Amino acid sequence: MTKEDLSNSTIFELGNKVEENFIGDAYLNMIYMDKEPIDAPIGNVTFAPGSRNNWHSHQIGQVLLVTGGEGWYQEEGKAAQLLKKGDVVNIPANVKHWHGATMDSWFVHLAISPGQTEWLEPVDDAWYSKL
Amino acid sequence: MTKEDLSNSTIFELGNKVEENFIGDAYLNMIYMDKEPIDAPIGNVTFAPGSRNNWHSHQIGQVLLVTGGEGWYQEEGKAAQLLKKGDVVNIPANVKHWHGATMDSWFVHLAISPGQTEWLEPVDDAWYSKL
Repeated sequence: MTKEDLSNSTIFELGNKVEENFIGDAYLNMIYMDKEPIDAPIGNVTFAPGSRNNWHSHQIGQVLLVTGGEGWYQEEGKAAQLLKKGDVVNIPANVKHWHGATMDSWFVHLAISPGQTEWLEPVDDAWYSKL
Repeated sequence: MTKEDLSNSTIFELGNKVEENFIGDAYLNMIYMDKEPIDAPIGNVTFAPGSRNNWHSHQIGQVLLVTGGEGWYQEEGKAAQLLKKGDVVNIPANVKHWHGATMDSWFVHLAISPGQTEWLEPVDDAWYSKL
């Protein structure tokens, strides 16, 4: 797939390339950063095929709303879940996990993220290639 | 436009027809209703052309993320704002307002709604037709 293939799923602007804590090409556009009425920034995250974030955990948790493409969500010690447009993921506090695109699809989600994130080691190619 | 025209903007399922506090055909699908990590239900709201909700206010406020079509957002005493895909609206606490589709377009938004809503009078046809 090419960027053009995202035209139906790219509701929000791509934003800027993410430089840290990700492997591959991913883009972040913070679409909500106020403190009220909810104190939880909202980012639109776009992953190119094969890109993913490092293992990490959230001190409060995170909600993902999948708006396009296909991707993976995996909690440590569990099988990876395939995500598609319309899926919603509730990530509990302090659960080590990662998310990202599949090898051959772009993947776009909104992330609602109260609290801080602790970044950990990358999801290396050997791990990712087994999915 | 027909329902089929929404195929590019209907990320989430339509859900059920809203029976109260709206004029025209509108649909609500609650896609997130947990209490943690954010205590704010998220609804996907789809308005058929000409449909809109009644004047209302939120005790804490609301965030709208527009995912498709074209619609209106109007606070009491202010001009109506035209909304399009990718727009984000921060609705402060206790501000009387309404939102809905334009006369000739479907309109789809996510609504993140902490706290309670106070429903008021309809946006009547005479008011709406002046937009």
